[in-house]
Amino acid sequence: MVQKIGSQYKEILNQYMQRQSEQNLYVGQNFSRQLISENTSPEDVISMHKAAMQELYEEMPDTVWHSFDFLIEMMINYGLALQERQSLLQRQE
Amino acid sequence: MVQKIGSQYKEILNQYMQRQSEQNLYVGQNFSRQLISENTSPEDVISMHKAAMQELYEEMPDTVWHSFDFLIEMMINYGLALQERQSLLQRQE
Repeated sequence: MVQKIGSQYKEILNQYMQRQSEQNLYVGQNFSRQLISENTSPEDVISMHKAAMQELYEEMPDTVWHSFDFLIEMMINYGLALQERQSLLQRQE
Repeated sequence: MVQKIGSQYKEILNQYMQRQSEQNLYVGQNFSRQLISENTSPEDVISMHKAAMQELYEEMPDTVWHSFDFLIEMMINYGLALQERQSLLQRQE
């Protein structure tokens, strides 16, 4: 399941990277809505992004990969805040 | 204000990039807590990250900058979900 999402993400990112069109961004936005509805955390999105970039552009300088690692760490607390939203919504039901 | 946060972010990222230590990651995590408490959206974090990287490593291939643009777009709906958490919390008060 995670693998399927990862390859979908890679495909959508790859399309965007070829053209950088508004339409490709729109596809990305729709996909992010799906990810949120499946409770994919923002740090998981950055991890998928890093993995997809590593497959698409393996020759990048290490700096790029380190920079994604830092972003993943930055997003962990955002993920926790989103879990809180989830439990607040459930409490309302 | 935004500028101050941006330069703090750049400093913390720069420290991490030099050493990639656990301690530097920990500083990043603490900083992310501060950003959340100030309602900084996840897409703003990616924008700051991109801007800091552009200042620190201006020679990177364009692919890197395009990839951050895509991530910013992916995070917009996460930002909206976090705003929802904020209003749910306020409703509880």
